[in-house]
Amino acid sequence: MEIKDKSLKELETLSQEIRDRIIDVVSRKGGHFSSTLGAVELTLGMHYVFDAYSDPFIFDVSHQCYPHKLLTGRWEEFESIRQFGGLSGFTKPNESSADYFVAGHSSTSISLAVGAAKAIALKKENRVPVVMIGDGSMTAGMVYEALNELGDIKLPVVIILNDNEMSIAKPIGAISKYLSKILAGKYYQGFKGKVDKFIKNNMPEGTTYIAKRMEEALKLITPGILFEEMGIDYIGPIDGHDIDEIIDTLQIAKAMNKPVIVHARTVKGKGYKIAEGQHEHWHGVGPFNVEDGAFVKKEAPKAATAVFADALSSLACKYDNVVGVTAAMPSGTGINKLMDKFPDRFWDVAIAEQHAITSMAAMAKEGFKPFITIYSTFLQRGFDQIIHDVCIMNLPVVFAMDRAGIVGNDGETHQGAFDISFLRFIPNMILFAPRDNKTLVEGLEFAYTLTSPCAIRYPRGAFKELEYDSTAFTLGKAELLKDGSSNKLFIGYGAGVSRAIDTESLHNDDIAILDLRFVKPIDKDTLVELSKKYDDWYVFSDSQKQSGVASAILEVLNDEKIKNVQVTSFEYRDNFIEHGDTKIIEESLELLPEQLVLKVK
Amino acid sequence: MEIKDKSLKELETLSQEIRDRIIDVVSRKGGHFSSTLGAVELTLGMHYVFDAYSDPFIFDVSHQCYPHKLLTGRWEEFESIRQFGGLSGFTKPNESSADYFVAGHSSTSISLAVGAAKAIALKKENRVPVVMIGDGSMTAGMVYEALNELGDIKLPVVIILNDNEMSIAKPIGAISKYLSKILAGKYYQGFKGKVDKFIKNNMPEGTTYIAKRMEEALKLITPGILFEEMGIDYIGPIDGHDIDEIIDTLQIAKAMNKPVIVHARTVKGKGYKIAEGQHEHWHGVGPFNVEDGAFVKKEAPKAATAVFADALSSLACKYDNVVGVTAAMPSGTGINKLMDKFPDRFWDVAIAEQHAITSMAAMAKEGFKPFITIYSTFLQRGFDQIIHDVCIMNLPVVFAMDRAGIVGNDGETHQGAFDISFLRFIPNMILFAPRDNKTLVEGLEFAYTLTSPCAIRYPRGAFKELEYDSTAFTLGKAELLKDGSSNKLFIGYGAGVSRAIDTESLHNDDIAILDLRFVKPIDKDTLVELSKKYDDWYVFSDSQKQSGVASAILEVLNDEKIKNVQVTSFEYRDNFIEHGDTKIIEESLELLPEQLVLKVK
Repeated sequence: MEIKDKSLKELETLSQEIRDRIIDVVSRKGGHFSSTLGAVELTLGMHYVFDAYSDPFIFDVSHQCYPHKLLTGRWEEFESIRQFGGLSGFTKPNESSADYFVAGHSSTSISLAVGAAKAIALKKENRVPVVMIGDGSMTAGMVYEALNELGDIKLPVVIILNDNEMSIAKPIGAISKYLSKILAGKYYQGFKGKVDKFIKNNMPEGTTYIAKRMEEALKLITPGILFEEMGIDYIGPIDGHDIDEIIDTLQIAKAMNKPVIVHARTVKGKGYKIAEGQHEHWHGVGPFNVEDGAFVKKEAPKAATAVFADALSSLACKYDNVVGVTAAMPSGTGINKLMDKFPDRFWDVAIAEQHAITSMAAMAKEGFKPFITIYSTFLQRGFDQIIHDVCIMNLPVVFAMDRAGIVGNDGETHQGAFDISFLRFIPNMILFAPRDNKTLVEGLEFAYTLTSPCAIRYPRGAFKELEYDSTAFTLGKAELLKDGSSNKLFIGYGAGVSRAIDTESLHNDDIAILDLRFVKPIDKDTLVELSKKYDDWYVFSDSQKQSGVASAILEVLNDEKIKNVQVTSFEYRDNFIEHGDTKIIEESLELLPEQLVLKVK
Repeated sequence: MEIKDKSLKELETLSQEIRDRIIDVVSRKGGHFSSTLGAVELTLGMHYVFDAYSDPFIFDVSHQCYPHKLLTGRWEEFESIRQFGGLSGFTKPNESSADYFVAGHSSTSISLAVGAAKAIALKKENRVPVVMIGDGSMTAGMVYEALNELGDIKLPVVIILNDNEMSIAKPIGAISKYLSKILAGKYYQGFKGKVDKFIKNNMPEGTTYIAKRMEEALKLITPGILFEEMGIDYIGPIDGHDIDEIIDTLQIAKAMNKPVIVHARTVKGKGYKIAEGQHEHWHGVGPFNVEDGAFVKKEAPKAATAVFADALSSLACKYDNVVGVTAAMPSGTGINKLMDKFPDRFWDVAIAEQHAITSMAAMAKEGFKPFITIYSTFLQRGFDQIIHDVCIMNLPVVFAMDRAGIVGNDGETHQGAFDISFLRFIPNMILFAPRDNKTLVEGLEFAYTLTSPCAIRYPRGAFKELEYDSTAFTLGKAELLKDGSSNKLFIGYGAGVSRAIDTESLHNDDIAILDLRFVKPIDKDTLVELSKKYDDWYVFSDSQKQSGVASAILEVLNDEKIKNVQVTSFEYRDNFIEHGDTKIIEESLELLPEQLVLKVK
């Protein structure tokens, strides 16, 4: 039976079945959890009122898209969510034509809807773009750029604002306060009638302009004044778990034939009591016990994020001028504890990477030492700010890039593949990387001393503990970990060093190993020296091959007119990398030591 | 005499002297003109009420900073504005400690102010960040990200919104309409009293929450509701040319000790009658005759921008699905005429690069062929959108990058140096470049046929006409322009091809010349073939050396295990490139053919 033919009762039953399925699969496989549970009824409403195979259904960030997947022919396949070769955790057009776009970064949805609306208008079609966007995504500037055009062109777009009063972590900023105020103020709408009458009685005669202005005055009484001022009609707030109210409202919104925001109040984690109202903790989860909500613990070494957070905390204790920022990833980047400990020196500025970077540039100018703690993939969102506001000014900002390399189940939108490539040509920028926990700690102390911008990278999960001692970081100096008796040289960068070591240990030959440490400035002298002894070089780094680490080395070899050296790059090829368990992905890319050693041989 | 000691009369005289100086110098030297003339009184007010050597003076984009330069010890030096070795056209801390930051890209100012305000609070100092931002800069998302935090943390910042009802080109979008409405609505403020009384009389008893809510209702009567809802106090609109009113208002704003927007109405070009109210035409100008406003015409060949615009116009006539967008640069990118001709297919979305790209990605998904016409340097602002919304989806969007290479007098913030470096590692992206007008036209036809994203680049100013015929573009195929009898090979990319030709013509040897055409996919086969005949290669391209064209070639040579070839890159070294006449800059970089030929010898 089609959704559109179901009774309200049947829809409620279906919503329960969807929840059960999500709770069952995610508790066993892990995945995005609370946001997707909170969006069940809204998604049902979308499918009841609109047509996912015709109307562009645009899920912002799309981590709330599981109900949508279940409703569009992927009920059984849902078992494979986020697994290698299985369903993506995000919308993906090559899975289903009901998925309009890939989305894993936030706040792109309204721009997509504007483009789709323009296209539909040109094609004179009757489709309507429908957006679902969480309140947390409303902080990024892109949303505002898109609303600015949408409020002007006024093409039909229905925007469902799924408001659970939180971003991934917690509500931040003026917009968030504004939305909360709306929710609180709902019952004042009855006041509207009185004001209406008052304005009629007090309106100067014969002035239609004033009449219009007064009509606008009425909007004050509607809660969505901010959106209305931007030219977008506003309906709400409605109960985002009341299917009847949702369907009625979406039908009205659809009939309005212009841009409308439907503001729906939802509860993150709805339907799984233990997660309800819990924020960051249940956003993305590993396997857990459905009965008591206990996470299935794996014995895991201390993650690089935790080592980073502890080291930064020590630095912050030692040096008053250490400050830091995250863009909505406080626990993901580990600075949540610092925010608690130093609330006036560490901030979450919400999903606002551009602002995070440029505001910290000003702090650096004022003598502070800002640490911008961010995932490699999200740093892409502040690229111009890195160049224009940090590097041209040559300010000592530290970009601490977590999740560098393969991130696993989140897949192509989240892989930390590109940071070396998009940073290494920027003048004044210093790029270096720790190889293990010890050098991560030392690297942060070193970063503190630098008077230029720098970017350091470290992986998701844990560094492997290495047996090699480390010397102190010196700007632009690599560290030779061992000499070798063959003509081969393994060059590692960051987490690539341990892969080089592991690969060497599987090889019959005694192979020299260099920790490059700095991609920029690169250690030309050491490379020249090593070229005299070794001519068969292998580069191990969790980064894109093009413009990556090996590429930087080739530039040196050419500049120095060194002709005897052949470089083999074990970096990522020219593709986006899919989702799946990190080890399985690395195996598919032939990057495991046991695979690499065969290539070296 | 200090500004603060001057009488109103003396300030008015000073404002006239400043205008005279600007008109005199810019009419002879060229420069940003109308926005800087419009900001004279506001700048005087800033200097009267605040201290530029202590309070951070933050000029957004900073093309309106000439009055500030004249007021901070650069009256004589102003003669050298935008000339090589002279004053920058933008604020620049190494010119004067009164210049807080370099700024040439828009909408960074409020983020800088937030960072400065946080730093000042931590240092417990009494300084106040003062921002001057034009209404045109208010469309970019960064502004909203910054306001979102500022409205939350509520640290003292004074934001002067310099509203001349236009961006560089013309007012666009809902925000712009909103601001215009405020300006029109000024005289309704008297209505406030009546409403105030009404609300008092109608307020339910004993409910302080309602009292608070009603107080908020009052804001409706103040014009700045949108800002007030975001937690920023609003004063205005005021007359931005009335020094007395400006000073009074800024003193009030300063005393408020929290974030305040002072909304000032100004006239762009104020004080030079011929430019007043004229928008884009007088924004940035070359030398002109002060008497009649006639521009000093130079005999110049047809600029690449114009060739591009004509070719795109032909394409748009031929193919219904060609659409295009600019982010506030309609005449700069040449699509203004297309916007007139095809108003439903070509758009100016205001300064909103992220939105421009992502909205066009959706149009591509809908079967359209979008041309994103943008300056190379501004494409940096949509970097994540290129990866996340265009390239992961592998959508056939065309990035038409104008102003690639040295742009001249705008200097370091505007040089189109980085585009090859930041695009060539992105999977699915195709990078190619025309070498002259003819291949630009052909290149656009070719771009139309591609089913993947592509980026083409062309320079500011005119291509040199070349004597070589061209063959049709074939994906990933270079074009050998001539064989040579020496061991040398000149490889040109884009405008670099004509430099290669000119350099060859100055050399005694007969040197082979290759037009590389594609950096990605690069023509491996041809490079391998040529390595058999030539082993001394020189790369000519207007791009950063690191990760640039030569770097891409080195990757091929290494992959193919070619050892006999030495590559010399005539690309830009690892520095930001200063402002000045393009030819003088190129000379300073030793990139003129007569300089290059010596290096080749």
